[in-house]
Amino acid sequence: MLVSSAHKGETNIMTMGWHMIMEFEPSLVGCYIWSENHSRELVRQSKECVINLPTADMAAKVVGIGICSGRDTDKFAKFRLSAEKGAKVVAPLISECYANFECRLHDASLVNKYSLFVWEVVKAHVAQSPHYPRTLHYRGDGEFMISGTNTRRYRRLFKPEML
Amino acid sequence: MLVSSAHKGETNIMTMGWHMIMEFEPSLVGCYIWSENHSRELVRQSKECVINLPTADMAAKVVGIGICSGRDTDKFAKFRLSAEKGAKVVAPLISECYANFECRLHDASLVNKYSLFVWEVVKAHVAQSPHYPRTLHYRGDGEFMISGTNTRRYRRLFKPEML
Repeated sequence: MLVSSAHKGETNIMTMGWHMIMEFEPSLVGCYIWSENHSRELVRQSKECVINLPTADMAAKVVGIGICSGRDTDKFAKFRLSAEKGAKVVAPLISECYANFECRLHDASLVNKYSLFVWEVVKAHVAQSPHYPRTLHYRGDGEFMISGTNTRRYRRLFKPEML
Repeated sequence: MLVSSAHKGETNIMTMGWHMIMEFEPSLVGCYIWSENHSRELVRQSKECVINLPTADMAAKVVGIGICSGRDTDKFAKFRLSAEKGAKVVAPLISECYANFECRLHDASLVNKYSLFVWEVVKAHVAQSPHYPRTLHYRGDGEFMISGTNTRRYRRLFKPEML
C-alpha cells in the first residue's frame, strides 16, 4: 500500500507493508508506521492520511518510494504521480492507484508502543475496472508476490447470514 | 490462517482472516479473534495458540472450519486433520498445513477494545517444499483469492541494509 499525507503545505508518500482490517463498523484499518518514517509526524499531526492501492505495474515505483525519504524528496514529483483532491481529507489521493481510502485517525494510543495507527476509512474510491486488479504483496528480501486474478468461490458452503 | 488451541483437555481450530505482522524482534503477530469465536476463551486462558498456514487445496476445509463452532464440534475429527505435538506450546499443530507458528500471548491489553491478540512466535515450522505454496486470501462474500506462485524480484533496487 502507499500512504499519502499532507501537513502544513508539505505532502509525502510512503510504502507500507504491514496493515490489517480491524473492524467493519466503523471501518477501521490498523497500519504500522514506524518512527523512522518521515510520514509518521505528518499523519500524527494532521490526523489524516489516504491509503492507496497500487497495481502490479507500479511495482518499481512502489519500491522506489519505499527506499527514499520525504525528508529530502518530493515523491509526487520524483515518481510522476498525480495528487488528487480528496472529498473528506486534506491529504491527497494518488490518481494512478486502483483504490484510495480517505482516512481519519481513530486511535493514536498504540503509536508509541506498537507504531500502530488505527484509522477510520471515511471515504473509499475504487476503479470500475478491472474487477480484479493485479496487486503486490511484499515477502521481504526484495521480493513481491503478485496476485489478484485467481479467484475461487465457496458461497454455496456458507450460511446466508455469514456472507 | 487456521488457529489451533488447547485448554484443559479441549482442543479447537478456527479460521482467521484478519492478522498482521507487528514486529520482527520479538516476532509479533496481531490476530483478530472476536468474542463470538469459541477459541477466544481457549487462547485467552491458555495464553497459547498455533497459527497454521493452509494451502489452497485445503480451501473447502478452511471454509468448513469457519462456519461451524467448537462449542459442539470436534474439528480435528470432523475435518480429518492431524494434531501434532508442538515443541514449545501445548496447543496442537495441524500437520496438514504448510507452516505452523507456535505462539505465546505477548499482550492481551487490546482484546477487550479491539479483539486483538498480540502473539509472539516462539517456534516456526515450515515445509521444505514447494518453495512457494499456493495460499488462500479471503475477500469476503464467500470468495477467496488464490496466490503464491507468481513472484517478482526487485533486490537490485534496494540498498543492502534495507533487505
